[in-house]
Amino acid sequence: MTVTQTLRKKPKVRGDTRERLVRIGTETLSEKGFTSAGLEEILEKAGVPKGSFYHYFDSKASFGLSIIDHYDELWAARLTRLFGDKDVSPLTRIHNYIDEAARGLEKYKFRRGCLVGNMSQEITSLDPRFRARIIEVFDLWTAELSSCLRDAQTAGELPLDLPVEEVARYFWFSWEGAILQAKLEQSVAPVERFRAVVFRSLLRQPG
Amino acid sequence: MTVTQTLRKKPKVRGDTRERLVRIGTETLSEKGFTSAGLEEILEKAGVPKGSFYHYFDSKASFGLSIIDHYDELWAARLTRLFGDKDVSPLTRIHNYIDEAARGLEKYKFRRGCLVGNMSQEITSLDPRFRARIIEVFDLWTAELSSCLRDAQTAGELPLDLPVEEVARYFWFSWEGAILQAKLEQSVAPVERFRAVVFRSLLRQPG
Repeated sequence: MTVTQTLRKKPKVRGDTRERLVRIGTETLSEKGFTSAGLEEILEKAGVPKGSFYHYFDSKASFGLSIIDHYDELWAARLTRLFGDKDVSPLTRIHNYIDEAARGLEKYKFRRGCLVGNMSQEITSLDPRFRARIIEVFDLWTAELSSCLRDAQTAGELPLDLPVEEVARYFWFSWEGAILQAKLEQSVAPVERFRAVVFRSLLRQPG
Repeated sequence: MTVTQTLRKKPKVRGDTRERLVRIGTETLSEKGFTSAGLEEILEKAGVPKGSFYHYFDSKASFGLSIIDHYDELWAARLTRLFGDKDVSPLTRIHNYIDEAARGLEKYKFRRGCLVGNMSQEITSLDPRFRARIIEVFDLWTAELSSCLRDAQTAGELPLDLPVEEVARYFWFSWEGAILQAKLEQSVAPVERFRAVVFRSLLRQPG
């Protein structure tokens, strides 16, 4: 066994193990949702024995909540970076978001979808704490996109009477559907159909 | 035991049992998706012993395919009835569709979502035959809605240059997302947000 393998199998720092579990959990749930994601499978990928798991989390539900927290942080950072990018025009930022997401879908061969989308689908079978937490995540996405759309209004890229928050929420509805269809068709074509209609109808430039 | 109870527990006609299994399977998968839906739970609700199940289906996957067929038939009938309703204007038919769906969500207390939406979410873990079959279902929905949108163009309710099929596909993307959000919020509010944006931006009347 090499030094690298030893380090990989027996991380010395407590925080590392917890982080690795959450990271691998996030990947697994993005693909399979919560119910189908086996704890054993995640522990094996993380190289963590079942006994240790309960040092970090008191249940699979607590683990799920930590995974949502982690996903929330990742997305908050991504959306702030893309939608707040002052180097490009506000509508270009939305194109950049779509481009980056399309590359992500291809990179993971259309296996990974949206973690909170997956968990919303199965929400009736899940721990009731998940519901409020996932609603918060979507509210944050709406706020981040709304801010970018208001920048677009200021820049003259969108009409001033566009009901920004309503449009932002609808953008995310249709984004969830486009991702679902991309997974189904194993193709970025649905994402490009999404882009075409969004920029023709939803985010129509004034005049 | 009354006659009714006897009939319910021991249906004499082979077709009845199969139909009941498919109907209860459809309800269960609309709520939980395929992976989380336990065969035992479905058999118990249907009052069918496990041994009998295999008279009708050779596997859970075959059962799943029959459920998609059934769902497809139900929806083809519903969409033909609503989108083909010549008694009302084409855009009114789309309002009627949304109204009926909102009542359905409330009736089942926001537990039941879209069966093919649920199964698309978990598609990477499912039998590969499901993928092509679900794509067919969405293609049919697109065709039904496109036909209604073309009627709206003829009636002067929509601009003649509207890219009908592209808009129809996008309508269904966002519909899937709105249903997901309605389940999450346990409210018809997302469906009404969907309606507002669809009729303001996507299906904007000419002039």
